[in-house]
Amino acid sequence: MNFFCALNPADESGVSSTLYSLTGGLEECSSSSSSTSAAAATSSTMNGTIPTKLVDPVDDPLPGVGTYEDFNTIDWVREKSKDRDRHREITNKSRHSTMALLLSISDAFSGWLLMLLVGLKTGAIAGGIDIAAHWLTDMKEGVCLNGFWFNHEHCCWTSNETTFQERDRCPQWKSWAELVAGSSSGPFPYFINYMMYMFWALLFSFLAVSLVRAFAPYACGSGIPEIKTILSGFIIRGYLGKWTLIIKTITLVLAVSSGLSLGKEGPLVHVACCCANILCHLFPKYRKNEAKRRETLWRSFFAALVAAFTLRSINPFGNSRLVLFYVEFHAPWHLVELAPFILLGIFGGLWGALFIKANIAWCKRRKSTRLGHYPVIEVLVVTAITGLLAFPNSYTRMSGAELISELFNDCSLLDSSQLCGYKSPTNTSGSVGNSLGDRAAGQGLYTALWQLALALLFKMLITVITFGMKVPSGLFIPSMAVGAIAGRLLGVGMEQLAYYNHDWFNGWCSPGADCITPGLYAMVGAAACLGGVTRMTVSLVVIMFELTGGLEYIVPLMAATMTSKWVADAFGKEGIYEAHIRLNGYPFLEPKEEFDHSSLAVDVMRPRRSDPALAVLTQESMTVEEVETLVESTHYSGFPVVVSQESQRLVGFVLRRDLLISIDNARKRQEGVVGASHVLFTDHTPAAVAPEAPPPLRLRGILDLSPFTVTDHTPMDITVDIFRKLGLRQCLVTHNGRLLGIITKKDILKHMAQMSNRDPESILFN
Amino acid sequence: MNFFCALNPADESGVSSTLYSLTGGLEECSSSSSSTSAAAATSSTMNGTIPTKLVDPVDDPLPGVGTYEDFNTIDWVREKSKDRDRHREITNKSRHSTMALLLSISDAFSGWLLMLLVGLKTGAIAGGIDIAAHWLTDMKEGVCLNGFWFNHEHCCWTSNETTFQERDRCPQWKSWAELVAGSSSGPFPYFINYMMYMFWALLFSFLAVSLVRAFAPYACGSGIPEIKTILSGFIIRGYLGKWTLIIKTITLVLAVSSGLSLGKEGPLVHVACCCANILCHLFPKYRKNEAKRRETLWRSFFAALVAAFTLRSINPFGNSRLVLFYVEFHAPWHLVELAPFILLGIFGGLWGALFIKANIAWCKRRKSTRLGHYPVIEVLVVTAITGLLAFPNSYTRMSGAELISELFNDCSLLDSSQLCGYKSPTNTSGSVGNSLGDRAAGQGLYTALWQLALALLFKMLITVITFGMKVPSGLFIPSMAVGAIAGRLLGVGMEQLAYYNHDWFNGWCSPGADCITPGLYAMVGAAACLGGVTRMTVSLVVIMFELTGGLEYIVPLMAATMTSKWVADAFGKEGIYEAHIRLNGYPFLEPKEEFDHSSLAVDVMRPRRSDPALAVLTQESMTVEEVETLVESTHYSGFPVVVSQESQRLVGFVLRRDLLISIDNARKRQEGVVGASHVLFTDHTPAAVAPEAPPPLRLRGILDLSPFTVTDHTPMDITVDIFRKLGLRQCLVTHNGRLLGIITKKDILKHMAQMSNRDPESILFN
Repeated sequence: MNFFCALNPADESGVSSTLYSLTGGLEECSSSSSSTSAAAATSSTMNGTIPTKLVDPVDDPLPGVGTYEDFNTIDWVREKSKDRDRHREITNKSRHSTMALLLSISDAFSGWLLMLLVGLKTGAIAGGIDIAAHWLTDMKEGVCLNGFWFNHEHCCWTSNETTFQERDRCPQWKSWAELVAGSSSGPFPYFINYMMYMFWALLFSFLAVSLVRAFAPYACGSGIPEIKTILSGFIIRGYLGKWTLIIKTITLVLAVSSGLSLGKEGPLVHVACCCANILCHLFPKYRKNEAKRRETLWRSFFAALVAAFTLRSINPFGNSRLVLFYVEFHAPWHLVELAPFILLGIFGGLWGALFIKANIAWCKRRKSTRLGHYPVIEVLVVTAITGLLAFPNSYTRMSGAELISELFNDCSLLDSSQLCGYKSPTNTSGSVGNSLGDRAAGQGLYTALWQLALALLFKMLITVITFGMKVPSGLFIPSMAVGAIAGRLLGVGMEQLAYYNHDWFNGWCSPGADCITPGLYAMVGAAACLGGVTRMTVSLVVIMFELTGGLEYIVPLMAATMTSKWVADAFGKEGIYEAHIRLNGYPFLEPKEEFDHSSLAVDVMRPRRSDPALAVLTQESMTVEEVETLVESTHYSGFPVVVSQESQRLVGFVLRRDLLISIDNARKRQEGVVGASHVLFTDHTPAAVAPEAPPPLRLRGILDLSPFTVTDHTPMDITVDIFRKLGLRQCLVTHNGRLLGIITKKDILKHMAQMSNRDPESILFN
Repeated sequence: MNFFCALNPADESGVSSTLYSLTGGLEECSSSSSSTSAAAATSSTMNGTIPTKLVDPVDDPLPGVGTYEDFNTIDWVREKSKDRDRHREITNKSRHSTMALLLSISDAFSGWLLMLLVGLKTGAIAGGIDIAAHWLTDMKEGVCLNGFWFNHEHCCWTSNETTFQERDRCPQWKSWAELVAGSSSGPFPYFINYMMYMFWALLFSFLAVSLVRAFAPYACGSGIPEIKTILSGFIIRGYLGKWTLIIKTITLVLAVSSGLSLGKEGPLVHVACCCANILCHLFPKYRKNEAKRRETLWRSFFAALVAAFTLRSINPFGNSRLVLFYVEFHAPWHLVELAPFILLGIFGGLWGALFIKANIAWCKRRKSTRLGHYPVIEVLVVTAITGLLAFPNSYTRMSGAELISELFNDCSLLDSSQLCGYKSPTNTSGSVGNSLGDRAAGQGLYTALWQLALALLFKMLITVITFGMKVPSGLFIPSMAVGAIAGRLLGVGMEQLAYYNHDWFNGWCSPGADCITPGLYAMVGAAACLGGVTRMTVSLVVIMFELTGGLEYIVPLMAATMTSKWVADAFGKEGIYEAHIRLNGYPFLEPKEEFDHSSLAVDVMRPRRSDPALAVLTQESMTVEEVETLVESTHYSGFPVVVSQESQRLVGFVLRRDLLISIDNARKRQEGVVGASHVLFTDHTPAAVAPEAPPPLRLRGILDLSPFTVTDHTPMDITVDIFRKLGLRQCLVTHNGRLLGIITKKDILKHMAQMSNRDPESILFN
């Protein structure tokens, strides 16, 4: 059970590999897909010399031909071409009958319908998670006498108390201490509340990790690194299946409620992609094509990132705001404030870089030491530490979203929060009206600052060991919380500096004016930290608009996130998701990473100089037995086909899986095909074959007649560009028209690892 | 002088071809660029057998090698690879000295610096255009007594009148009638104003068209079709040069002021791209690389589209709104209203499709008949018609932006606009306070509706013949104006329908409530029409947010623009810019257009079956004379190099321009190279050459050793995809390792034209 979160299907416990077949997955339904387009294209040019009794794979594709093995990379060009063939066929048919025309129209609209269904399903699940998490979180504090299924807010809904503060303490809601000891103050009730909090936290986290372990190992983590890899064309069966969806939904609620330092936005993206993938099964257009499916997933991925935040805003309890953390600040920002904003950017960048390094080091440790063998104990210990340290401090006891919301808020006159514990304005300037002008910090605020400083330290440390545990866990909320705390601290500091030294801020911050808004600093800090961890910039600023509705703060947000990105990039180019992708060895070709070395294709291709010669098939001179021997003696996923061993002129490329399925099928069903039969990749029967020879096996149908080639002199930067832009799986290397070798995506990733002095063997999958 | 706006440098008047050399252009500075990367890559593997006295094109690239001819397509892969080589070299050098390190850092930041400079320069020019256009527009109506250089608003700035309406008629500002006749009412003053309006309009448009004609023919039109083509990799010398910039800036002001139905947003994009291109000259990173330059232009293109609207909002006269057409509606929209919104979408789509068809038909007429020979007369006649018809109607007399702004506005109680000429509320419902509730239309509103209907008809017709004339002209504002008028008309209609039939709208629109906002309808209509013409959807909705700041109207805007796109697409897939690109025959490969035919590469490649064989060079058996004869007997831009005529195995590709420059240079400067010298594309000297033969000409340095190849069986959809994604110029076609033919971008465009039953000869350039 070393790192079952890292997609190792050969799991020692056997549990996950049993479930592996249970979890209905991404690729299970593609077995009936049609043959490759090259094959289809050839069929029109094939001459009529083929005896009709031979099974022609072109007209009647064998099941399995054209599909992929688990943990392999798809060929985008091929898949897209396949979809265009399908589309062409539908369009052609639609000219002949009304029924076919209707089918063609429904096919065209199926993408819209699918996205609608995905939106509805994801929205419903996200809403359910939200309500359930609220209820369980409140359960840690107490219970509603009207019915245990009410959360705190809901329980007090019908209460007669008028102000929000009083309503918060309505008689129907009882804390555990009130229920057990009958009192809510004093050390003993506090102890009871503390213990009940710990009890529920440990129970929730135990349930979460056990469910993940027992039913869906793929449900852990945020899922974003794996989804990025899947979207780039990798196959992970079951990762987006229905079991993952069910277990992830349940355990996400439990993990969030347990009080661990994690968010639910990242896992919701995984949930949305599961929904999209499952709903894809309803439409043949998406069921049968890996590339089209991924396009849909990609849209869901984006939609979910936005929906994860905005859906929660459709608050069923009457709050009509359209955004999650609604901000409305009294004062505009001043150009001088760019300095502290950039300072927050530097903090965010430093923390992002540090967090990634520390988290990856910790995850490596988990993979390589005995720590990884006891995921349940690990989760319980971390939950216990989190609970013990978080309970006494009100800023860590509340949920991450609540904390951020409070830190973003501007202080109004009515605000009773500790953060607004300013001294009453003394009106020294004689001005009337603007009692929201600058004020000296009071005792309440000083206490709040201390608690916030402790909360900052705590959040920074605990998030490092939390992210990567075997429970669903997102990073958005914890990262933003760290930044928001730092920002609020700096904001209050600036505010007090301005209050006591008005002469320093000559010209724009006169006494009595409300010129510095600590809530804005919290917002900027949150964006900076999120930027440092994920390395998003523009999209992040857009997300912050979505969150806060504050369109006027584009410059502060941009300044902080750009600074944060630059600072963090100085310590390492990778964001947290890329770092986890590399840690797990997925074959992911980062779209932005520049390939900056002067290698040529000949330096990267296999076979190397010391290797045995490339395993190739010839187009007409090999027998079935020879082909079988060659295939079995190697582990390659495909084989180039050449005119003859002497000329090495390239004809095409055939996939191992297609080859084995076709030979197996021919031996079973096709009369006369024996080991001595010739395998023909040509249209015609060669003259050299004796007339009394057994009937040949014709395999031109499964031959890809348009394999990608580059010359041996092609610079690797161009080759990498081609792989990236076209989504290739492999590419053949020629010299003066003769086949020299082959480059696969894995070869490229290994070469890139080598060039940046990393272990090339860290790339695990094909 | 047939269509000098369509980039024909062989212009009969001779004026433009003289200026053609004057206009400092996009490509003039790239002559000193380094050799291709393939050549650089080869240099390391060349052995030492080459006599040192030979000029090696690798170490010392000849001027001109690696550059492009005018009206040709660049090779993106090559250009990007070149930039990576340059970057690698700088990085390597930076390890050795501090100076080089500083250079490397400044190189890395030059992109940011460049964008900053482009932003500043474009902003300054846009601001200048705005101020000048305001002034000249007001000049048509009257003059300021304080000084003729004040516009109307500026002139009345210091006036003592308090309300805006009165201030609008301050004593310092005199209409022409007041100046000449001493009175402002009555038929004679009206006639004087009318005539002065016509006089200025004709003067401005005459100046505009004459300046364009005399100094910068490329300054006409919106420029967006050409810029799209340039960004995709086409070379048009001078299109983004300083003369185009200067003349376009001046004539844009004149054209806008003349009252023609055109906007300035599109031409501002051209201006921004000119600024970016000219500023590129300051940085060698961008000066020497066509691909990097286009990346920068692309960013400016986007930035300008947004800046064109938002820059104007930095109003120097104290209006603090951040958006151009600020909207703040009183009432939210209701689900039932989606029906009229979708109706507006249908109108927008129909109008968009109709406009494109009519405008293209008119432009074709201009190109093919004598109409195109008299651009100045055409502009004067259209200006005269526009002026005569526009002056009497206040909605056509005001500028497009003013009209849109008025139509978007909601009626408040104080509004004195005719559009708000409702009857006073009678308070039948007895409710107090909401006097903005629904009201019956009064006389003022009925007059306004009539005028708007006439304005709609007028705008729809005049825009068709205006867009494409030989003056700078944009489409955004006229399109939006048409949609806004239609929307406002429908909005008022809905409002009155609700007022008189409250029972029809049971449940959501009770009597006295303000439930329908005509301004919102105008906004939705504007988006729908802009969508129908340009076929943008999501980006358009984003632009509408930018324009109006109305985040709550995402659903109405989305519904209308999607409907508009669907309806318009049913009549033809092309937007107005793509239609103009095709009209002018530019080699532009539409990134979204699906290639839906089952052709193979062999069907598209040259030579065709009936053609003479492909002109190829051999790697070592041809003499300088033979090469020269071959090159001169053809007009191809490049030649494949093969091992021998018999084997036809491909070695590389050499560009005609590089070949001619190198041979020419060798004959002049290299001792002993004569007509009988062998041209060698190999590293070694072949054994067959006699020792007493003249010294060979070695040209491996200019040989591209990694030409792109596809097999003859490659489906064309895949080939098109490769061209599009990699930005190829040409691709060689092989069969079983032997060279068969070549496919260029032009061949693909011709094939696509043929497939959709268009004239393949309409593709004019390479």
